[in-house]
Order: sequence, then structure tokens, then C-alpha cells
Amino acid sequence: MELKNDTLLRALLRQPVDRTPVWIMRQAGRYLPEYLKTRAEAGSFMDLCQTPELACEVTLQPLRRFSLDAAIIFSDILTIPDVMGLKLFFVAGEGPKFENPIRSADDIRKLPSPDVNESLGYVMDAISLTRHELDGKVPLIGFSGSPWTLATYMVEGGSSRTFSRTKKLIYQEPEMAHELLGKLANTVTDYLNAQIESGAQAVQIFDTWGGALSAKAYQDFSLKYMAQIVAGLKRENEGRRVPVILFSKGCNTQLEALANTGCDALGVDWTISLNEARARVGDRVALQGNLDPAILLADKQVVRREVNETLNSFGQGNGHVFNLGHGITPDVDPDNLAALINAVSELSPGFHS
Amino acid sequence: MELKNDTLLRALLRQPVDRTPVWIMRQAGRYLPEYLKTRAEAGSFMDLCQTPELACEVTLQPLRRFSLDAAIIFSDILTIPDVMGLKLFFVAGEGPKFENPIRSADDIRKLPSPDVNESLGYVMDAISLTRHELDGKVPLIGFSGSPWTLATYMVEGGSSRTFSRTKKLIYQEPEMAHELLGKLANTVTDYLNAQIESGAQAVQIFDTWGGALSAKAYQDFSLKYMAQIVAGLKRENEGRRVPVILFSKGCNTQLEALANTGCDALGVDWTISLNEARARVGDRVALQGNLDPAILLADKQVVRREVNETLNSFGQGNGHVFNLGHGITPDVDPDNLAALINAVSELSPGFHS
Repeated sequence: MELKNDTLLRALLRQPVDRTPVWIMRQAGRYLPEYLKTRAEAGSFMDLCQTPELACEVTLQPLRRFSLDAAIIFSDILTIPDVMGLKLFFVAGEGPKFENPIRSADDIRKLPSPDVNESLGYVMDAISLTRHELDGKVPLIGFSGSPWTLATYMVEGGSSRTFSRTKKLIYQEPEMAHELLGKLANTVTDYLNAQIESGAQAVQIFDTWGGALSAKAYQDFSLKYMAQIVAGLKRENEGRRVPVILFSKGCNTQLEALANTGCDALGVDWTISLNEARARVGDRVALQGNLDPAILLADKQVVRREVNETLNSFGQGNGHVFNLGHGITPDVDPDNLAALINAVSELSPGFHS
Repeated sequence: MELKNDTLLRALLRQPVDRTPVWIMRQAGRYLPEYLKTRAEAGSFMDLCQTPELACEVTLQPLRRFSLDAAIIFSDILTIPDVMGLKLFFVAGEGPKFENPIRSADDIRKLPSPDVNESLGYVMDAISLTRHELDGKVPLIGFSGSPWTLATYMVEGGSSRTFSRTKKLIYQEPEMAHELLGKLANTVTDYLNAQIESGAQAVQIFDTWGGALSAKAYQDFSLKYMAQIVAGLKRENEGRRVPVILFSKGCNTQLEALANTGCDALGVDWTISLNEARARVGDRVALQGNLDPAILLADKQVVRREVNETLNSFGQGNGHVFNLGHGITPDVDPDNLAALINAVSELSPGFHS
């Protein structure tokens, strides 16, 4: 099936486009009543992830409402640790938890290398099914957590504000930390390659907690493993290049280093202007971002003004994918997201003339 | 009384010193058993803040254990909103809350301008008493929250992860946000000047949540007001210059702008190397920081190695004050902090030869 709208893929490769493509991190999510309905019917969050028909359904929901330029497969970054035996579960209001968090060097040594096509076959099935349902309307994005970000959940046993256990591991037992991160990098590489082979047309690595690390520790314990993954990915499929996006939140002092990993695009949070980010990475990579998600809590006029500000900050030329600087929050009115997408559609052609 | 150890004040002004001075954010805090004892005896946290003898006692406790180069008056950044009528209280395990958070434009218009010498007289009394007790041993640092950081607590009603209400205010009703921030800037200026007149020999502004803002919003809603405060401070007292330190956590893309406010020094978190920070600010300001507090959870050899790394990252020369990149956490063993301070004392003279 031919891809009818390849604006996203072209922009990620810094090729000419006539408008700025847009998709939204967590676009299939709790701000949508239809998502909440499907999730309630599914039973648990994990049931939703693990049932390809349901994962496909929620992936497609935002595309029925909005003129988005991409779908992103509905899943969770913690499926990898789950199938490595840590057993993921969710407690309402408390976020993700693991039944078997990593508590010793021995736990790291014993971690299996899962066959992702088998243990995470439900993700591949959801991707195949969604590609079929999309029928070439827009490209489908696959994703994974970064090794560092996955490791924080695995070592802390869930979410954290200080990452005390994981940081103690990297400082006190760096060789064990590297063994864990190396295993994760191999599995993430397999996982993203399997997603690409199943039909993902671009992939994004979410390094949500890279910003918790010192500049030096970031290079040694996060960046290095993302670069290793980028080098191991299948970069062409179905006769097209498969762009790779790295999104390392809170790591704007590292943009140059991130741009040198060999990825195609960088996700950028809102704490740096796109203008400055672009000046720093030059023409090495495209940039994706970077509206503060909180702007969607204001009214439509404000949303439109800030969309214009963001487009203007990137400026004229190719290589910009419009997105938020982090995931959309559950308290957003979907009509405000519609206003954002309309504003990008109406205002962005002026930046591609 | 003569100041016997002025290493901190000299380093903050980038004057020659023979070793790098050190103090620790939240050095009077929950990691110290003697602090926990005094706090338990005081009754509530607010009783501890509001009783000058007790605030003085906990301010001095870390200096009895460690060779620190400064004391910092024990207090809380939220005393200002408290005396503006919001009424601060603490719920165990939940952090600070306000009885009367800001919920409308009218709440902002009605906010009083407190006479800080009267309503916050307990802070001035604690400073006078602590200066007397210190007897010139080391300088005493005063502090305040930044207008933006105070505003987040006042508008959210307490701590927040997303700052939705405060961001909605700045985007939707910027003129009301400016009215609030302007009032806070005036009160913070009065408050810090009163602290200086009571004996604070350096002052620090904590912009703990500056990093939540977009680059542009940061300039308009946080930086601008800190610059206004810096311009309004009494910079000399008792025949000495009173250095002003700005600490804007998570704002490393803004270091140049911060250095241009007229402050003497910048607090730096651990997500940027001191080497890079120094290259960016040049000789305009001194730098204070920036060890990741989590390193204090590793063993003493690791602490020493990372202290050396931090000293080495700043490199040879003046203008460095050793500190963590954020407050010390309650789970730290005080002996590890002793190892940090000893390491700075032993290793830093080599960087001032």
C-alpha cells in the first residue's frame, strides 16, 4: 500500500515539504473520552497493550478526530522489562511498578535476553494490524524507552524523583550498570528492528529520565547506549529510509552530542528555543517539538499564538516536525488540540515558501 | 566581630583564595540526627522556623560536625506567601500547602505588601542571633525563593509536577501574572535587604522551578524579576560587598542571561559540566556547585573521586564555590558528607596554585 501522506518522513529527513507535519506525544491517551472508554472495556492497562485489536483501535482514535501526520503505536515503554521477568503492573494513582525489581548484581547477571518476536509478539501484531487499518493514510511510528530510562524503572521498582538506587548503581558498581545497560541496548535494538520489520515506518527512543544524570554520567550511561542502538537499527524498509528520532528530555546541554549519534531527528523539550537548538545542531538532524504541553490548558487564541511562536522560532526551511515538548496531559480539552493542529496546518506553509 | 574565614565571600567575588570553599544546600536538614531531634522538640516545622533560638540552633548544627565555609540561616522559602495571608502548613509526607491559595485575579489584586521587618521579624531575629553565636567563624548566608518559584506554590496551593494552574495564568492572563510576580519581586527585595541589614553576609535566590518554563517564558516570568531584585539589593554592608547568588535549577540554557543580571555568582545543577558552564559565563560571575546529591549515597572512595572530578571540571583558578547541584537528601549518611568536605579541603588547594 502506497503511503499517501509522507510529510512526516520527509521532514524527519530534512527533505522539502510544503507545510510542517504534526503529531503529538501520547496522542492516544487519557484526554480522549473514546480512549477512556476502550481502556475501561479492556480491563487493565496491560490488557489494552497486549490485545492487538484494542491497541490498534486506540492508536487510530486520535486520527479520526484530528488531521495528524502520523500514528504512533499504542504501547508502553515498560513492556521490555516486563518480558525480561520483572512483571509490570499498575496501581491506580501510583504509576508503574515491578513485582521483581532489580535488587542485586545477581539479578542483573540472570536477566534473560528475550526473543522479542515471541515475547513481545503482541506489539508486532498490533503494528501489522494498524498498518493494515491505516491503509497508507499516514506513517506509523514505533518506539522504545532508552536503556537508561528503562534501567531506572527496573532498579527503582517503579517511578522515582531522585533515582537514588539507579544512581548508586552507576557510581558504586559501574561495571554492573554497564552489564544491565548493555543487555537493555541489545534488546531495544532487537525490539525496534522487529517493529520496523512489522511495519513501523519511523522509530523514536524515549530517554525520559536522561535529564536526571550529570553531564558526564549522561554520556557514559545513556547517550552511549542510544548511539549503539542507532548503529544497530535497520534503517531502510519497504524501499524507504526509516528515520530514527531520539528524545532525551531535559538534556538540552547535550544536543550536539545527540546529533552526532547518527540519528535523523531530535525531540526537543520546551526549555530551549528551537532557534537556539537549530543553531547548535546545524543541518545534522531534524528537530521535533517543542510546545509546552501546559499551553493546551489556555484558550484557543493563546494556543494559536504560541503555535505561531514555535513555528517562528524554528524559522524558514525544512527539518521541523511540530509536536509538544512532552506528552499531552489528561486534563487537556481535545478541542484545544484541534486548535493546535489547525494552527500548524494554516500557519506552517508560510515557513516553507 | 571580625570575619575569621572569608573564603566563601572571596570566592563568590572571584577573588584569589588558597582553596575552594564549600557549603551544602540544605546542610541543616533531615540527614542529621540532631536536626531531627530539635525538630521533634520544636513541635511543627513552622515552630522551628519561627523560634529564633531553634532556627539558630539547627543553623549551627552542621558547623559543629563539618568544616564548612558558611552557615545558611534555617528557614523556608514559603515564609513570604505565608505572611501575605496564604497561611502555610505542612502535611507529613505531602510537602507544603496553603490554606488560601490564589484562585482568582481578585486574590492577586488583594495581596498585601507585608512589612517584612514586622511580619518576618522572626527571620531577622534568627539572623542576628546566629551572627552573634557564629562570632565571625564563617559568613552567614540569607536566602529567598524567586518570584516565579513562590508564585508556583501560591497558585498551585502546594507542590506540583506540571504547574498547570500557574502556567495557565502566565499564558492566559499574563498581566495578572505580572502583577503577582511584581508584588513578589518587591517583597523579596525588601526581605533580602532586611536580611542583609540583620547580618546576612551573602544572599541566594532559589529559583527551584525556573526549569519548568519554556525559554521565552523563563525570560519574561522568572529571569526578569530576579534581575529586578538584584538591582534593588543593598550590595554593601559592614564595609564589605554582599555577594548575590542566583540558583535557577534546570535552566542551563539560560546561564549567559543569568550572568547578565548583575549577580555575583550562579548556582549550577549537575546536568552541565562546570567546564562548559565556565566557558559560557566567562569571568562575569563565580560558579557554585555542582555535584549530583545522589553521589553521597555511594561510598567514600566514590565521593572523593567525584569531588576531584568536579574540581577538575572547573579547573585552575578562582571563582568556584563547592556545593551540590541541589539540596542534600535525607537518606545521606553524614559521614559521607564529611568525606566530601574533607576531599574538597585536601584536593582543592591544587587548583589554586
